[in-house]
Amino acid sequence: MYKKIKRDAQIIPLKDIGLIIAETGMNKNSKIVDAGAGSGALACFLAHLCKEVVTYEIREDFINIVKKNIELLNIKNLKINNKNIYNGISEKNMDVVILDLPEPWKAIDSARKALNIGGFLVSYSPCIPQTMDFVNEINKDKNFVHMKTSEIIEMEWEIEERKVRPKSKGIGHSGLISFCRRI
Amino acid sequence: MYKKIKRDAQIIPLKDIGLIIAETGMNKNSKIVDAGAGSGALACFLAHLCKEVVTYEIREDFINIVKKNIELLNIKNLKINNKNIYNGISEKNMDVVILDLPEPWKAIDSARKALNIGGFLVSYSPCIPQTMDFVNEINKDKNFVHMKTSEIIEMEWEIEERKVRPKSKGIGHSGLISFCRRI
Amino acid sequence: MYKKIKRDAQIIPLKDIGLIIAETGMNKNSKIVDAGAGSGALACFLAHLCKEVVTYEIREDFINIVKKNIELLNIKNLKINNKNIYNGISEKNMDVVILDLPEPWKAIDSARKALNIGGFLVSYSPCIPQTMDFVNEINKDKNFVHMKTSEIIEMEWEIEERKVRPKSKGIGHSGLISFCRRI
Amino acid sequence: MYKKIKRDAQIIPLKDIGLIIAETGMNKNSKIVDAGAGSGALACFLAHLCKEVVTYEIREDFINIVKKNIELLNIKNLKINNKNIYNGISEKNMDVVILDLPEPWKAIDSARKALNIGGFLVSYSPCIPQTMDFVNEINKDKNFVHMKTSEIIEMEWEIEERKVRPKSKGIGHSGLISFCRRI
Repeated sequence: MYKKIKRDAQIIPLKDIGLIIAETGMNKNSKIVDAGAGSGALACFLAHLCKEVVTYEIREDFINIVKKNIELLNIKNLKINNKNIYNGISEKNMDVVILDLPEPWKAIDSARKALNIGGFLVSYSPCIPQTMDFVNEINKDKNFVHMKTSEIIEMEWEIEERKVRPKSKGIGHSGLISFCRRI
Repeated sequence: MYKKIKRDAQIIPLKDIGLIIAETGMNKNSKIVDAGAGSGALACFLAHLCKEVVTYEIREDFINIVKKNIELLNIKNLKINNKNIYNGISEKNMDVVILDLPEPWKAIDSARKALNIGGFLVSYSPCIPQTMDFVNEINKDKNFVHMKTSEIIEMEWEIEERKVRPKSKGIGHSGLISFCRRI
Repeated sequence: MYKKIKRDAQIIPLKDIGLIIAETGMNKNSKIVDAGAGSGALACFLAHLCKEVVTYEIREDFINIVKKNIELLNIKNLKINNKNIYNGISEKNMDVVILDLPEPWKAIDSARKALNIGGFLVSYSPCIPQTMDFVNEINKDKNFVHMKTSEIIEMEWEIEERKVRPKSKGIGHSGLISFCRRI
Repeated sequence: MYKKIKRDAQIIPLKDIGLIIAETGMNKNSKIVDAGAGSGALACFLAHLCKEVVTYEIREDFINIVKKNIELLNIKNLKINNKNIYNGISEKNMDVVILDLPEPWKAIDSARKALNIGGFLVSYSPCIPQTMDFVNEINKDKNFVHMKTSEIIEMEWEIEERKVRPKSKGIGHSGLISFCRRI
C-alpha cells in the first residue's frame, strides 16, 4: 500500500509510523488529526487502521495529491481540512493529534482544545532545534506532559549463508518523534 | 493499554511491534496468526487493530495469562489455539503469520499453508543464529521471498532547556525482525 | 592504565578518545593542547602516545587530581597550565588542540594562534546546542574548516554458544566530537 | 596520512582503528603484530604510534602494496613477514596481536605463544558467524579471557544554522572487534 502512494513532499518512513501507532495505542475506534498532510501518506496509512482521520493542509498542490491518493486507495474515512492548524482545529474529542510542521509549538494550543483528556500530541521533526523548541514549550504548558522523545534507527541485516552482518549502508536519520499527553 | 497487560514471558517492545504493523500494512480487515502467545501481549495489541487474531500456545501457564489479559482488556476477536504451530495452522487465508519461537524454521511449512498469496510471514528472534537459520531456510523455499531483516534501535532523548542530547542509557537490543512474503 | 586513573570529573570514554586519535592522526611526534584537564584522563592517555601534552585547567581541585595521576602513571611529557584557555594558549606550533569545555567557541581564537597550519581543533560536547553554537561559529571563521561532527555509538555483543546478540543494555550517548582544521 | 595510503584490500575504518588503540592502551613502547596486512593501512597507522610493528601477509600482490605504502610514508619501524600466521609467529613478547583474517580462530595458538602475559589479542571480522566461532573458541581456552566484543557505529551530523541533525546516510556496519587478554 505504502509504495503505491504518490509522494511529492518528503514522507515519514515506516519505522517512524510504526512507533507512532504502537506508542499511542491507536486502534479501530480512534479519531486522529494530522497536519500538515504533505502527500497524505501518513493520513492514508492511519485511515486503514482507525475510525476517522482528518488531515490539515494549506498548500493546494499537496491537497490535490492527497485527493488522488484517497481515490487510488479507495479510502472513505479520511477528510481533508484546507486550513492552517496554527489557527485552530475544528474537530473535538480527538484521540491523537500528529504534527509534521516547521513550527510545531504554534499548534500546541489548537491541539489542547481538540484532544480528549489522555489523548496524545505527537510531533515529528527532522531537526533538533525544532524538537527542542517544541518540547521546551510543552514543558511550560500545564495541560500537557512530555512522555518521551525518541529517534528510531533501523539497521537492516544481510543474511546469506555465513555472510551475516548489518548492511554496510545504514538507513540513517529521518526525524525525532516527541510524545506528549493531554492531562 | 500495553502497560496494563500481565506479563510472565518476556514481551516484544513497542518499537518492534510498530515495525511489524507498519511493514506488513495490517489493518481493520486483516486476519492474523501469532505464535507463541507468551503472555498474549502482541496478540492483544493486534486484536485492537485487526479483524481477527488467533494465537498459538502450548504452555498451560501462558494460556491462563492470555485468558486473563483478554478478559481484562475486554477483547472479542482473539482466539487461543492450544496447539503446536510446528504441526500445522488450522486457519486458512491469513494475511500475516508472526513467529516468536525458538526454532521458527520449523513453522515455515505451517505458515505456507495458512497464508494468502502476498501475505507476510514475520519472525522475531533475539539472537543472530536463529535469525540466520530461519532466513537461510526461507531462501531455499520457493514459496517465500525474504524481504528484509531489521533491527530497531530506539534512542531516547533528554530535552530540558539547553540540555539536549540522547540519554546516556540506550534501550539496547531486543530482537531481529525478518519479513518474508508468500508468493 | 585508563582504569587506574583517579577521576572526579566525568571522563571521556575510550570509544571517543579512539576517534580523536584516529581522525587527527596524532603520533609520536605530535604536540597537543587539551582543555579543560578535568581529572587529566585524556591528557595522560595522550601523553603515552605523543611527544608533548599541555593541559589547561583553572580549578585547583582538578589540578591536584591531574598531578596525582601524572605521578601515579610516571608521566614525564605532560605539563599543566593553570590558565583560562579562553584568554590564550602560551604554546605555539601545536598539532592538535582538544576542547572539552562548556563554551568551546570562546577558545577558537586561542586555538587559531596556537595551531600549525593543517593542525586540528577538536571539540567534545555532551549536548547538541553547544555543538551547534561551536560549529556555527567555526563556519563563520576563515581560518578553520569544519571537517565533520560525529557521535560514536558502541554496541557491545553477548557471545556464548548460540546466544549471540547485541547486549540488552546499550552504552548510550556520551558526546559529539567536532573536527576542524586550521587553514 | 590515512587518505594517502594505497588500498587494494578493504581497509578497516578509522572509527574501528580508534577503538583498538584506545582499548588496548598501545603506546610509544608497544610491540605489535598484525595479520593479514592487506594494503598495510592498519600496520602503517600503528607504526606512527608504536615502537615496532610486524605485519603478516601471504599474498605477494598485497605485500607489494604494503612495501609501496611504507616507502611513501617513510616508515622505519614496520617489518613485513611473508608467512602464514596460522603456522606461528616468529616474534616473542608482543603487546598486541591484531587479526583481520577469514578464520581467526586458527591463529589463537600462534598468538598465545607470541604475547606477553596481559597482552591483547584483537580480532576484527565483518560477519557474525566468524566472530561467534572465534569467541566460542577463546572461551574454551584457559590462556585467554574474552574482555568484550564491540561494534562501533559512527553517526555523522549535519550542522548548518538551525539545520542540525544526524546525516540521512549513516556510515553503516564495518565489523565487530573482539578484545581478549592473554593470562
